[in-house]
Amino acid sequence: MNTGASRIEVNEVGPRDGLQIEKAFVPTDQKVAFVDGLSACGYARIEVTSFTSPKAIPALADAQEVMRRIQRRPGVVYTALVPNIRGLERALEVGTDELNLVMSSSETHNRANLRMTRDQSLAELINILQAAQGAGVPCNVSLSTAFGCPFDGDVPVGDVLRLAGSLAEAGAAGITLCDTTGMAYPTQVADLCEQVARAVPGIPLTAHLHNTRGMALANAIAAWQTGVARFDAAAGGLGGCPFAPGASGNVNTEELVHMFQCMGIETGVDLPALLAIVRGLPQLVQREFSTPMLAAGHRLATHAPPAWLAERFGPA
Amino acid sequence: MNTGASRIEVNEVGPRDGLQIEKAFVPTDQKVAFVDGLSACGYARIEVTSFTSPKAIPALADAQEVMRRIQRRPGVVYTALVPNIRGLERALEVGTDELNLVMSSSETHNRANLRMTRDQSLAELINILQAAQGAGVPCNVSLSTAFGCPFDGDVPVGDVLRLAGSLAEAGAAGITLCDTTGMAYPTQVADLCEQVARAVPGIPLTAHLHNTRGMALANAIAAWQTGVARFDAAAGGLGGCPFAPGASGNVNTEELVHMFQCMGIETGVDLPALLAIVRGLPQLVQREFSTPMLAAGHRLATHAPPAWLAERFGPA
Repeated sequence: MNTGASRIEVNEVGPRDGLQIEKAFVPTDQKVAFVDGLSACGYARIEVTSFTSPKAIPALADAQEVMRRIQRRPGVVYTALVPNIRGLERALEVGTDELNLVMSSSETHNRANLRMTRDQSLAELINILQAAQGAGVPCNVSLSTAFGCPFDGDVPVGDVLRLAGSLAEAGAAGITLCDTTGMAYPTQVADLCEQVARAVPGIPLTAHLHNTRGMALANAIAAWQTGVARFDAAAGGLGGCPFAPGASGNVNTEELVHMFQCMGIETGVDLPALLAIVRGLPQLVQREFSTPMLAAGHRLATHAPPAWLAERFGPA
Repeated sequence: MNTGASRIEVNEVGPRDGLQIEKAFVPTDQKVAFVDGLSACGYARIEVTSFTSPKAIPALADAQEVMRRIQRRPGVVYTALVPNIRGLERALEVGTDELNLVMSSSETHNRANLRMTRDQSLAELINILQAAQGAGVPCNVSLSTAFGCPFDGDVPVGDVLRLAGSLAEAGAAGITLCDTTGMAYPTQVADLCEQVARAVPGIPLTAHLHNTRGMALANAIAAWQTGVARFDAAAGGLGGCPFAPGASGNVNTEELVHMFQCMGIETGVDLPALLAIVRGLPQLVQREFSTPMLAAGHRLATHAPPAWLAERFGPA
């Protein structure tokens, strides 16, 4: 099997992409404790919050307080989503290490999610990139619906390449290809990652995958095989998309980490520590949810054989 | 991305591997209707039932009646699991097209599941293979725990190769590598499939995957990339393993078929027809369960954009 990088970087997006869609407001103390717990797990990056308008996303209205109060662990990059210049200012005031800008690859999703045309969004993002460069803070750009749009269906590869190229030229430090509603499939992921990598050489790519149709880990392998070595993921598979009913959340961090660790790939993430955090998530978000790794455990978490075996066959 | 066969065969194992573990007895009429519904979906093979002792698996006590009453559709191979010579006789009496024998790759799982040592099971399977050859009925052999054992942990590749070799020599028409409790990971799947294919050249291999830790589809891709073109799968992800608490079931047929169809690989399976059957499974097995493809639909099942879009931006 073709293999990719021997070490991957995992970006935990649960505190932002996960919590933003939860109905119950997670108190600030608990958000801070969540991020601090994640910091101890060994992530490369944690997307802590989003500096959007509190009216647009009330769940993350406490973005500045959270970013101020978390304990910064050396080696972890603390990022936040920034939608506009006002958000940039708020993010910089509280010392965000890296910014994540976002726009959609497809026109209708961009209009529905950001209330702007793609051209308007692109112009806005280029403004933010310039201002962030002035402030010396690196900006990643996430391209939503890169593998398909819940309204428009298939998205022309040319649209993704054009946006990635314009944003890289404007100073993006990285590009994330987002499968916002879980429409990606492995050969498509491999093709698009290869094409974007050729279009923006030297710019690190991140794969942001959802498990809506069960393909998240298959898509992660496909991306990794083409050289992608950064992955967004959410503890417990938190997250979703308000425009795609039935859509499940982000790829589960614990499943992504477990798979790559099984294959001998370094992730930096302490899986038992992460699973302990995942176990507390239903309490954090005030709803029941199941995540397979909690039920099943590590692949080598073996069980005791039935007691009658020794009686029948003698000691093993 | 390395690709495999342009057409795969899907073996539906829901009626056997799925129903055998369900608590509620599914009435014979409903089993027959389930299989007949599946027959209309375009499967290569359907594993209809198991000719085990009704005492051992009461859920499938009506094996002969089911096999007699299903409507045989030309082009579909109707198979059944056969554990011993008595089961072989019962299977042949009702005209089973192809038999599936089973033993474990690991010692402890074989003892726990089949109440025999592996040597005893191997001898029994060789007997059945000889008797079946006499009757002119092809036999596939499924090697459970080929990628790991819930009791013994990692299973030496040499054990799998030795069993596959002995069974091929004894006349097995095919070998299935079973990830009984979802312990397989992609690089391992690729390695083992390649090694077994070399050890038993000309014998078709089948991958039998479980989604216990989210890797079923990633493992399917890994197997397919090495040339494996047959996959077991269960509608709705029915199934499980009594010895591995928390283990989820077989790979969902609808997810497997959807993924390969997205990649342009022929599966023969009519996905909408299959999804209609999956929709009825909670009623069939008398319990709630969710399956992601029912919630999300096909990747290109797009949604109407929010009504305010047209007002704000004008007609699309």
